[in-house]
Amino acid sequence: MPRILIQNCDVLSVPDAATVEIQPARDILIDGAHIEAILPYGQADPGRFDETLQAEGLLAMPGLINTHAHTPMVLFRGLAEDVPLAAWFNEYIWPLENNLIEEDVYWGMTLGIAEMLRAGVTTVNDHYFHMHQAAKAVEDAGTRALLGWAVFSSGGTDLLEHSAAFVEDWQNAADGRIHTIIAPHAPYTCSDDFLRMCADLATSLNTGIHIHASENHEQTRISLAKNGKTPIQVLEATGILDRPTIVAHACGATPEDITLLAKCGASVAHCPKTYMKLAMDIAPVVDLRAAGVPVGIGTDGAVSNNTMNLWEVLRIMALAQKEITREAESLSLSETLYVATRGSAKALGMENEIGALEPGYLADIALIDLSGLHHQPVHNAAANLVYNMETADVRTVLVNGRVVMRDRQLLTINEREVVAYAAAARERLSRRLPEQRIQTYAP
Amino acid sequence: MPRILIQNCDVLSVPDAATVEIQPARDILIDGAHIEAILPYGQADPGRFDETLQAEGLLAMPGLINTHAHTPMVLFRGLAEDVPLAAWFNEYIWPLENNLIEEDVYWGMTLGIAEMLRAGVTTVNDHYFHMHQAAKAVEDAGTRALLGWAVFSSGGTDLLEHSAAFVEDWQNAADGRIHTIIAPHAPYTCSDDFLRMCADLATSLNTGIHIHASENHEQTRISLAKNGKTPIQVLEATGILDRPTIVAHACGATPEDITLLAKCGASVAHCPKTYMKLAMDIAPVVDLRAAGVPVGIGTDGAVSNNTMNLWEVLRIMALAQKEITREAESLSLSETLYVATRGSAKALGMENEIGALEPGYLADIALIDLSGLHHQPVHNAAANLVYNMETADVRTVLVNGRVVMRDRQLLTINEREVVAYAAAARERLSRRLPEQRIQTYAP
Repeated sequence: MPRILIQNCDVLSVPDAATVEIQPARDILIDGAHIEAILPYGQADPGRFDETLQAEGLLAMPGLINTHAHTPMVLFRGLAEDVPLAAWFNEYIWPLENNLIEEDVYWGMTLGIAEMLRAGVTTVNDHYFHMHQAAKAVEDAGTRALLGWAVFSSGGTDLLEHSAAFVEDWQNAADGRIHTIIAPHAPYTCSDDFLRMCADLATSLNTGIHIHASENHEQTRISLAKNGKTPIQVLEATGILDRPTIVAHACGATPEDITLLAKCGASVAHCPKTYMKLAMDIAPVVDLRAAGVPVGIGTDGAVSNNTMNLWEVLRIMALAQKEITREAESLSLSETLYVATRGSAKALGMENEIGALEPGYLADIALIDLSGLHHQPVHNAAANLVYNMETADVRTVLVNGRVVMRDRQLLTINEREVVAYAAAARERLSRRLPEQRIQTYAP
Repeated sequence: MPRILIQNCDVLSVPDAATVEIQPARDILIDGAHIEAILPYGQADPGRFDETLQAEGLLAMPGLINTHAHTPMVLFRGLAEDVPLAAWFNEYIWPLENNLIEEDVYWGMTLGIAEMLRAGVTTVNDHYFHMHQAAKAVEDAGTRALLGWAVFSSGGTDLLEHSAAFVEDWQNAADGRIHTIIAPHAPYTCSDDFLRMCADLATSLNTGIHIHASENHEQTRISLAKNGKTPIQVLEATGILDRPTIVAHACGATPEDITLLAKCGASVAHCPKTYMKLAMDIAPVVDLRAAGVPVGIGTDGAVSNNTMNLWEVLRIMALAQKEITREAESLSLSETLYVATRGSAKALGMENEIGALEPGYLADIALIDLSGLHHQPVHNAAANLVYNMETADVRTVLVNGRVVMRDRQLLTINEREVVAYAAAARERLSRRLPEQRIQTYAP
């Protein structure tokens, strides 16, 4: 692989949740997929590198990490507006997904990855269907992903076999950029026995688990009434939490659930734009973090979040936590940036590989331009990153030591081709016959 | 003034809070400051016009209206992060404003207007100091504004005389683009007698009033304890509400306050990013609108909102109302777009002049490009406008029948000059001596 020198950038460092530092005028030396060194500007010999990126005036930071998404759903965005959760599933999403063909997943994944790259997002933890197509899209786009094939009890063991074959085919594929995971949908769509089978499968394949659970307090109440356990307790009882588990949402987590998640080492993926849009509960990020539960940020699918813009998500996380805790000090600038970088890496179990710019870390890097009028004057770059960023401020993106977007031009994705596919598929994908839904929401 | 033809655009129409229509392939005929006609594409003779704007594939909509701002505060953005309201005032804003010189207001206003134009915002209702400088900035930038000189009791009647002179100098200035208003700061910084003087002044000058009130429930409780009246009731008792009044925030409004605001014909400016950021209460937009109180959207100052991006504000309004009402149906796409257009115009008493694209309305127009990846596929343009917009999607902006931004190039503002001023002033403006504050927050 070519050796790349990023020359004379500033470098963002968020060593802990209380500290943001910007190291001025640095050279980032990249050897293959990894950062070799970060030196004061001028100490590296450009002659040793195959390519030099002039980055004066740009801020280098770790590529953002989307810890919970259904990326191919970008193809449905705008089709389920102003509806509550049960109708969102039963009248919109699950009928719409009946339209999905394998090819859609490749192109939807590619469209969503393109949108993410343009926002500086380099890794996604994705939970969807036909995931071999999603994996192929990630392979082609040159990005990083943790991929799980969504399974319901109603799909039976056939679907589990698909899921297992997917793991065997794609684990560590694409130069190690693709990792895989077992992805049961949720306790309310998977029986306890099915969850146990998923846990066993994850053990035998040595993977983690990515699951929705406790999406609001209503689910917690219903689960307690039905079987005397909260959704999080169901995850424990079925062996799910014995595996490294990423719980999407946990909005209805009780204090005991939080303690349980911490004890089991599970992490939580937080998607607050979705929660507000669907009038769900807001997950208690402050309490989760205080208990030691790793929290990462996610866009969820674009039929609730509408975009794949993770900058907006981190901002809404901070705003919503200040609001629900009634403390303007909650989710400070440094803590918000920590959650968006090292915190999200840790939520995926990748804290030694991504989420920071340091020697030995993978070279997943976004170069940010804070020269726009909406940032001026720059009294406080950390505030600009949390509250002012527009995706257009992301200039150049590297993944695994390779430039995938240069000065806002995507190098690995043909935008025109992707947009043409989406336009051609638009009408077919928007047909909606509620009786033909792929699943029913009845927690 | 030159006659302009906008050719072959789609036109957004939000006739009421339940309806969004997009008229495809229209020509917009502009005569002087006003829209003369909107015709199907091809019916207008380009030869009759001095200039033709090719707008195929663009969506024309009314320029956005910022109903509450302190625009020059962009110069302080990022200087008061993660602090609650009382500290925000006493330890940050009011000490920082001690640094302000007249020239800062001109350049801060110009910087903020530039940022607003780049986001498609064409009108601002501004409440600040040294407003003759702000007015000059509006005059030079070619935009529209309603301007009020902020006054406190502590400034005495001298400040009221300044304010009156400002109204006399600038009412209907700049080809009618500037209107003026009396702007007492708030019931907690203005005595009842001072508020009565402001109301009398507004009567004698025939202007409205723009005031902060009821910023959270704590202010309501303290006001009730101190003088048996809510802040809104204080506005009534002092004659303020006898004038056309724009109340910024009303987050602590009681049900009786809402009835009173409706009865008096007062409107509310809503700035939800500020409320969440400072952990204030969220104003009850749904209840206010149900009672018939006009509600408009605002950025407030950039030391709480961080940017002048009104797209983000309208989105957060919708999300926050869904969350606090626990109804995903609240602030639907059409209602949100209505509040952002006709609703915000009505909040400023300008509903027959701005906020809609119709013959006879002022030609304040934003041309929007929905071709970005983050909008694809476009199943639902209304959803894209509410939940997906980036300011970079705004291509071209007209105010008062004149092109002020063309394909993202500002034509009336020298960006380099503005940024240079902000950079040069940055350090001076960031010095902070709490004992030298211009005012004290003690509601």
